[in-house]
Amino acid sequence: MKKKLFLSLLFVNSVALFAQNKDEQFFKEIYNSALTKSQCYSWLDHLSNDVGSRLSGSVGAEKAVQYTKSQMEALGFDKVFLQEVMVPHWVRGEKETAYIQDNKTKIKVPICALGGSVATPKNGITAEVIEVHSFEEMKALGTDKIKGKIIFYNRPMNDGAIEAFDAYSGAVDQRYAGAKEAANLGAVGTIVRSMNLRLDDYPHAGGQSYGDIPKEKYIPTAAISTNGAELLSKTLKSNPNLKFYFKQSCQQLEDALSYNVVGEIRGTEHPENIMVVGGHLDSWDLADGSHDDGAGVVQSMEVINIFKNLKYKPKNTLRVVLFMNEENGLRGGKKYEELSLVNKENHIFALESDEGGFTPRGFSLECDDSNFSKITNWKALFEPYLIHSFIKGHTGSDIGPLTGKKIVKAGLKPDSQRYFDYHHAANDKFDAINKRELELGAGTMAALIYMMDQNGIE
Amino acid sequence: MKKKLFLSLLFVNSVALFAQNKDEQFFKEIYNSALTKSQCYSWLDHLSNDVGSRLSGSVGAEKAVQYTKSQMEALGFDKVFLQEVMVPHWVRGEKETAYIQDNKTKIKVPICALGGSVATPKNGITAEVIEVHSFEEMKALGTDKIKGKIIFYNRPMNDGAIEAFDAYSGAVDQRYAGAKEAANLGAVGTIVRSMNLRLDDYPHAGGQSYGDIPKEKYIPTAAISTNGAELLSKTLKSNPNLKFYFKQSCQQLEDALSYNVVGEIRGTEHPENIMVVGGHLDSWDLADGSHDDGAGVVQSMEVINIFKNLKYKPKNTLRVVLFMNEENGLRGGKKYEELSLVNKENHIFALESDEGGFTPRGFSLECDDSNFSKITNWKALFEPYLIHSFIKGHTGSDIGPLTGKKIVKAGLKPDSQRYFDYHHAANDKFDAINKRELELGAGTMAALIYMMDQNGIE
Repeated sequence: MKKKLFLSLLFVNSVALFAQNKDEQFFKEIYNSALTKSQCYSWLDHLSNDVGSRLSGSVGAEKAVQYTKSQMEALGFDKVFLQEVMVPHWVRGEKETAYIQDNKTKIKVPICALGGSVATPKNGITAEVIEVHSFEEMKALGTDKIKGKIIFYNRPMNDGAIEAFDAYSGAVDQRYAGAKEAANLGAVGTIVRSMNLRLDDYPHAGGQSYGDIPKEKYIPTAAISTNGAELLSKTLKSNPNLKFYFKQSCQQLEDALSYNVVGEIRGTEHPENIMVVGGHLDSWDLADGSHDDGAGVVQSMEVINIFKNLKYKPKNTLRVVLFMNEENGLRGGKKYEELSLVNKENHIFALESDEGGFTPRGFSLECDDSNFSKITNWKALFEPYLIHSFIKGHTGSDIGPLTGKKIVKAGLKPDSQRYFDYHHAANDKFDAINKRELELGAGTMAALIYMMDQNGIE
Repeated sequence: MKKKLFLSLLFVNSVALFAQNKDEQFFKEIYNSALTKSQCYSWLDHLSNDVGSRLSGSVGAEKAVQYTKSQMEALGFDKVFLQEVMVPHWVRGEKETAYIQDNKTKIKVPICALGGSVATPKNGITAEVIEVHSFEEMKALGTDKIKGKIIFYNRPMNDGAIEAFDAYSGAVDQRYAGAKEAANLGAVGTIVRSMNLRLDDYPHAGGQSYGDIPKEKYIPTAAISTNGAELLSKTLKSNPNLKFYFKQSCQQLEDALSYNVVGEIRGTEHPENIMVVGGHLDSWDLADGSHDDGAGVVQSMEVINIFKNLKYKPKNTLRVVLFMNEENGLRGGKKYEELSLVNKENHIFALESDEGGFTPRGFSLECDDSNFSKITNWKALFEPYLIHSFIKGHTGSDIGPLTGKKIVKAGLKPDSQRYFDYHHAANDKFDAINKRELELGAGTMAALIYMMDQNGIE
């Protein structure tokens, strides 16, 4: 009896060891393929430098759909298809103008209208400025003081935060809901310090919402560069009665027809179980969006290229989904889930890359404890590739709407320190991408998908 | 008896828990100081943009000694002093010229003389080219084929390596000993593919040595940009008889007087035990050397600034040492050890930062197993700061000569992926530095020094 137990334990151990060695070996091949045979960098070169910016509804977004579809068709999917989705169509119009009017001196400052903002009157707005650092501080001032003024939100991102995304979460309310809150108190416009941890001259775009206030109460809102914000704040201290002028001609047009791009490889054993890997195809309009989220798009495609190079056929159905309209509406993510419900699909796993093309550090996970512990048990396999961080937390906006009885969601976590140097700004361009960092991200995604495919969910 | 044991175990556990909480709290304060109150970024701004390049023996190196000394004097050390050291004084002279002569077409390519190289004759060298990928391949060709030719070393850094430094180690023999090996076989010059993992137009400088061959056999050697190397290789394939022309006017001058800059805080409990933290003050001449090793210099100084902010007085003597001449001679590191032996000093710990100012990932360690296991036991304290990698391996060149009965040596390990984009090239400039990444490195160094100071070595 004891001997039998011993032998069977030995057998179990040998099987486990064999599996581990097999996985170790496959990880090596995955990363080697990513670093020496990838296409993601040249795809991104095209997406950034030839297609360019890709705000929902723009010509760039349309070109990006066609380009990625054509590239995916060459990758050996069982099928590549488009999902129709109506997207918001906001256009910036002419480049914005803004200056500080300090007595007789006009000082130009760099601003950009926030996504979804209304225009100023044709000749712009000139008004006195009230600097605040929170909604509470503003509300305490009351309507009388705020009426007719421009509210200047100037709470910096917390530079003491270790993860840059924590600093972002702690400041982005000013951008997202600042106009709505200030409009309710009678302000005529808002200027928001850019979501940027460093001091520079780039205004950073981004979404904002007027929430449920009536259209006639909408006020124009713009981001100012961090250097501009510092200057405005300093000048206000010496002259609280200075005036600020800004002019923007942005418009919300009719919704436009656009698409999610989907490529599918049918699973060899469980075709009914679907795994998704994706990023979002749209970007803000000020630059190429190489980090946000060109990187996630080409890394997701690269996962398929890696599996193709290694002749790996997933057991479960694997889909690359390039979502449209993450930036200002999330319509693509919502549409994907809507169709998934209609088609009664069973998603077991979804992985998104939307935190930039920097050196990968790990994954955030949304799942129950048993799956979390299962995945963190794979840490040793990832360690040689310097992947060390497995945390519970927000994974990705596009896969957010996805439901499923037991779906595991994951987000690639790259190093975050440089992300907000580029996020939504005119410098989020191809030259800010390091080829190896991008490729290591793709390899890391392929490795997790391989493990999920091999081991399933709990 | 049992009760006593239980109580004393409880006591021991409480003490351990108290120590752990105290350390956790102090780590928070260290990182907060690093990210919100540091001076390192502005020091580096001055060192890079006002002082500039700092090759040993140059005016820049002299200015850097004076500047860092003056800044350290304001930091509250017990003493700041200079250590005299004679350093090699090599100068590049005029900018190099090189072209591929492909029949009647001349194609200019970017090269730079390697450190320590001799000049070409005044009008340059023109010769046929033999491309090789290793010394073995070259030796197998034999003297007859090589005599009178230029050897072109074109083995790329291994892009499959996960750590960029591993790729560097596997290729740098071509740069360091290539001229010597080729001279022995009768070559008239060598051109070496730059130590760079990406394709671009920057030639990368770096040290080289003729070893023990007689002076009259020295041949000129230069690095060519990776794009230049690709072009030369491609052109050679279609025309193996093409000629290569290059001209350089570098010179080795008489050794010059220079200095290590040292700041010392006397230990409150064990002044006889010395801990060193440092980087090297010299850089190559093509750029500011912001990553190599301006970053290490200002991070080492920042450790003191952090301790000053937190009013932390080290138990052991703590020295900041800014070493001269790491790049082409290591004279500063050798001099420091020489003087340490003369003065019968007892070094217990040395930490070097010389792998760039990128996001810190961990430490390499040179120590015995008991100290290694002691240090790796601190991993959990570092985890919230995304410091995860503690490995045995090369720590730092400048602290290399340091001996000691039981010295522990450590090297800061930042993310390595971008390092060779800049290493020794004209783009290693201040704008390649991210303030937060630099500061996180300084915080990480301060945290390890604090732990070593509190816990001593085994």
